[in-house]
Amino acid sequence: MKALAHYRSVYENELFNHVIPFWEKHSVDRRNGGFWNCLDRDGTRYDSKKFIWLNGRQTWMFSKLYTAVEQRPEWLEIARLGADFLRTHARRDDGRVYFSMTETGEPVHMQRKIFSECFWIMAMAGYSRASGDASAMGEAKELLEKVWKWSRDLAKVGRPVYAGDTPSQSLAIPMILLNLIEEVAGDDRETYRPEVEECIERMLLHVHEDEETVYETVAPDGSFIDSIEGRLLNPGHAIEAGWFLQHWAQYLKRDDLSRTAVNMVRWSYDRGWDREKGGIYYFLDSKGYSPTQLEWNMKLWWPHCEALYAHLLTYSITGNEQDRAAFEQVHEYTFSHFPDHKFGEWYGYLDRDARVTHRFKGGPYKGCFHVPRALLLCWKRMSE
Amino acid sequence: MKALAHYRSVYENELFNHVIPFWEKHSVDRRNGGFWNCLDRDGTRYDSKKFIWLNGRQTWMFSKLYTAVEQRPEWLEIARLGADFLRTHARRDDGRVYFSMTETGEPVHMQRKIFSECFWIMAMAGYSRASGDASAMGEAKELLEKVWKWSRDLAKVGRPVYAGDTPSQSLAIPMILLNLIEEVAGDDRETYRPEVEECIERMLLHVHEDEETVYETVAPDGSFIDSIEGRLLNPGHAIEAGWFLQHWAQYLKRDDLSRTAVNMVRWSYDRGWDREKGGIYYFLDSKGYSPTQLEWNMKLWWPHCEALYAHLLTYSITGNEQDRAAFEQVHEYTFSHFPDHKFGEWYGYLDRDARVTHRFKGGPYKGCFHVPRALLLCWKRMSE
Repeated sequence: MKALAHYRSVYENELFNHVIPFWEKHSVDRRNGGFWNCLDRDGTRYDSKKFIWLNGRQTWMFSKLYTAVEQRPEWLEIARLGADFLRTHARRDDGRVYFSMTETGEPVHMQRKIFSECFWIMAMAGYSRASGDASAMGEAKELLEKVWKWSRDLAKVGRPVYAGDTPSQSLAIPMILLNLIEEVAGDDRETYRPEVEECIERMLLHVHEDEETVYETVAPDGSFIDSIEGRLLNPGHAIEAGWFLQHWAQYLKRDDLSRTAVNMVRWSYDRGWDREKGGIYYFLDSKGYSPTQLEWNMKLWWPHCEALYAHLLTYSITGNEQDRAAFEQVHEYTFSHFPDHKFGEWYGYLDRDARVTHRFKGGPYKGCFHVPRALLLCWKRMSE
Repeated sequence: MKALAHYRSVYENELFNHVIPFWEKHSVDRRNGGFWNCLDRDGTRYDSKKFIWLNGRQTWMFSKLYTAVEQRPEWLEIARLGADFLRTHARRDDGRVYFSMTETGEPVHMQRKIFSECFWIMAMAGYSRASGDASAMGEAKELLEKVWKWSRDLAKVGRPVYAGDTPSQSLAIPMILLNLIEEVAGDDRETYRPEVEECIERMLLHVHEDEETVYETVAPDGSFIDSIEGRLLNPGHAIEAGWFLQHWAQYLKRDDLSRTAVNMVRWSYDRGWDREKGGIYYFLDSKGYSPTQLEWNMKLWWPHCEALYAHLLTYSITGNEQDRAAFEQVHEYTFSHFPDHKFGEWYGYLDRDARVTHRFKGGPYKGCFHVPRALLLCWKRMSE
């Protein structure tokens, strides 16, 4: 393995010289606030809509850079532009948050899901910590309470339940709530202890030890559902869930949880890795049928970002060579195919053979988040 | 070019010996009625849900075989099983039709679109003609009236409109209504003359002669919208719309419409054909940006099915060698990659390089429809 110092300088250079400058230069709308998301390879805007998942995440990201790296006024200013847009425009009176808006903040679309709300909360929590604006944290906590209730009853956000619907629960919900609580609570984690325990309990229902499999969707009692949805594996998502859980295992000092988190990362990576062509598949079917998602065999940037940090974190805890080798394997693949040093940021989408299929750097679901978060987390972990 | 008689026997053999038997053998639920849709390469069921677009289309298809090919009692019986399931279970009291159901007919999901309703109508119209059951046609006409109203105001089916939403219209709506009216009206087309004229007018707004481009989504006055949605091209869809329009142009004896229909097919094929690897792209961006759909460069079965019939029909009208060459090109590509003579039916999904990415023959959006309809239409046209 190359020396840690080598990787550390690679991640530092990538983050501060190739990734963050792209977003600083091309995404910030200094007139209306908020961030443009649809940015072509060279940063050219190909759509002016603002996507709220991505506006929330970028607000959080620049807040984090300010608090965790260096108090550069320009980073706080970018975070403020994001937070102002989100507060002024993105939230409806009932607390619900839009999915997409015009560049001046008129609503375009609202999802029947709670993720826009989650990233709004994440943004406000991060921004409050960066700016010292306590009311932003108050708003984050207030919306978190609502989202907590909605997460138990999605009918409340307009998702009707029909008689033939198989009762099920999705890994995404407890997973994002766990991450949100980490962001909102800060050093005050004890306040959220019951919610954290419940999220962990719900997440563990997805981890089937006997089959070494993490399912995206299970029955409310955790049992397997033999359908397209029940067999679906999303290895990158399960790997990300693994490091979310590991953070809590470390904080709670629970070895059992830590072992489970290690397993989630190892099993999902092992299952998701394309042994023939390299890279992590987007979707798989646990019984080997073809997933119905057309993009199942593509290699997306974000599962690779999540795997970088998850393996590094796991290795830092276990000291096991298997985890180091996994980190090096995913590092090698990722840095060979995703970065674009000519214009900055990373490509998001490769075909199974690792050819770039989409030249843009930002789109409705790709913003300033997975790449810089993973680089920052890895860089900080390597510095420790 | 090979002799027409050669193609005719190829299409006949494919339809009656390789495609229809697959669905007869594996899809029919003789206990509950309706059709299973999720069928693996060899017909094994990998999910028991019933998708209503596909149940409607298969009911129509077997009705059509019965009326247009041969009055085989087993085909009528299959159509009846489909029609009974659709009538008993798929329609809600307010006329809305579910998107998916359990195999015993409990609702699972309802879309905020009108396509389930459209295929329900198509099924009932076809079944009524095959069976002589006049009440099925009455039900089809009654629902068509509702769908006509809903199509002008999608908020009525639960699709909220927000302040920042760009007013737009989608090619899919006038196109499917035009096809539905053809199916419902039969020989009584004059009754629907005003509706037909309106559909044609709305469709023509999508055809931009100066750019030789057919847009999926345009402003209500037909003008171009410079956004992800406005620039989207779906060549297979535009080709299909071309032959829907050509059918009406022939019936109405309107040369101007016929020429436009010819252009829609030629331009969309020319634009959609992958000159490097062959096959028709699923999506393109009219200004050359990367489409945001992850599957944009895949080669799907249905655009190729639609192109087969569209080129053949166009050639039969124009007698132009260009159209014959286009038919032969798409025939060659299609028959080299999609059929599976080991187990029957066609694969649905190829990557850009024409490798099969999904081994199943039936899935939530692929049923007994595009392949047999195109084969039947081509075979009949070649027989004339």
